[in-house]
Amino acid sequence: MREVHATASERTTVRRLPERALYDIAGIHAILDEGLLAHVGMVTRHGPVVIPMLYARDGEMLYLHGSAASRLLRDGRGVELCVTVSIVDGLVVARSLAHHSMNYRSVVVMGEAFPVEDVSEKSRVLDVLSEHVIPGRVAATRPHHEKEVKGTLVLAMSIDEASAKIRTGPPIDDEEDYLLDTWAGVLPLMIGVGEPIPDPRLSPDIEIPEHIAGWLR
Amino acid sequence: MREVHATASERTTVRRLPERALYDIAGIHAILDEGLLAHVGMVTRHGPVVIPMLYARDGEMLYLHGSAASRLLRDGRGVELCVTVSIVDGLVVARSLAHHSMNYRSVVVMGEAFPVEDVSEKSRVLDVLSEHVIPGRVAATRPHHEKEVKGTLVLAMSIDEASAKIRTGPPIDDEEDYLLDTWAGVLPLMIGVGEPIPDPRLSPDIEIPEHIAGWLR
Repeated sequence: MREVHATASERTTVRRLPERALYDIAGIHAILDEGLLAHVGMVTRHGPVVIPMLYARDGEMLYLHGSAASRLLRDGRGVELCVTVSIVDGLVVARSLAHHSMNYRSVVVMGEAFPVEDVSEKSRVLDVLSEHVIPGRVAATRPHHEKEVKGTLVLAMSIDEASAKIRTGPPIDDEEDYLLDTWAGVLPLMIGVGEPIPDPRLSPDIEIPEHIAGWLR
Repeated sequence: MREVHATASERTTVRRLPERALYDIAGIHAILDEGLLAHVGMVTRHGPVVIPMLYARDGEMLYLHGSAASRLLRDGRGVELCVTVSIVDGLVVARSLAHHSMNYRSVVVMGEAFPVEDVSEKSRVLDVLSEHVIPGRVAATRPHHEKEVKGTLVLAMSIDEASAKIRTGPPIDDEEDYLLDTWAGVLPLMIGVGEPIPDPRLSPDIEIPEHIAGWLR
């Protein structure tokens, strides 16, 4: 149980259960690279809003795909976001309900996000986003049309203000509860993958490529 | 592709891709009941913050477990939250990168959350939260100690302002791209479950109960 900080600014310093905090940048990057979906929080005139968004890390930058934040952007200015990525690793089954928990890894990145305007840079970032979800996919598809790149909103933010929380291991029960005959342990969870379903209009001679058949997280 | 609204208030009306919106309460409840983790957004003096939290639905109420929001609560007043639950059902693999997508179901609930103060009601809600994650677990564990109930923060909010987004089905490609020999389709994703790992201190005669061995989402 530990937490991670890239730069422990006041607002990303973990207050609750700080023994679960971890402060190294490699740990933060690893969680961001394994996660699939980010939950992105922003402040609107109606209050807080959280939207699931596709994201990817590239070096010290985090990129977000989608127009959800677009109406918050103002000319030349960015939008203040909180990007949270969570991976559930298991259910922690304890002898009392109070000590039930989840094994998980999560990262919170805070900062101002700006739209990527340059078309060739945006095209590159769209490839980075695609490779985050399905490594190997970019090489298997046609190049972007320029209108596709221009019609897509990509946001960039720095990962310099980030923290992570991790819980691992068995339940921690009250000492007297270890005498109970209640099953306790961990039920591991992960992303399960089914059989690929070909598009109804796909020609039957086109085989499933390895980057799909072997996709694993 | 559709979206759901319980009561389509101005702020939960989906602006982008409204054909993915669905507006029936049964659909919203089903997504909330299947999801495992909520991402809860709140506005702090430092800006937006999104925290993963355990939740459960009971009738028209949503309950949240955890102290993350506690420092935002003020005497007798609630805290404005946005609770988002997302389920990823698959990767949508298209013939162009621009038409890649995910099949998913997500719900956004907005409103003011209040702490549950009454001890017997809070004890009941803790059972509801537990049953949401592991149905059958409450009957298999000892009753709560009163100090456990008193030491836990539970928030309640109404589900009367909610919306959902759902994407299902194959990729939708540009007409001319259907001629390409690029594989396209859907890679189904789900929650995978591993073998239960008994607690190191568990007596070997205690068998894995059915609510753990048969856990499925």
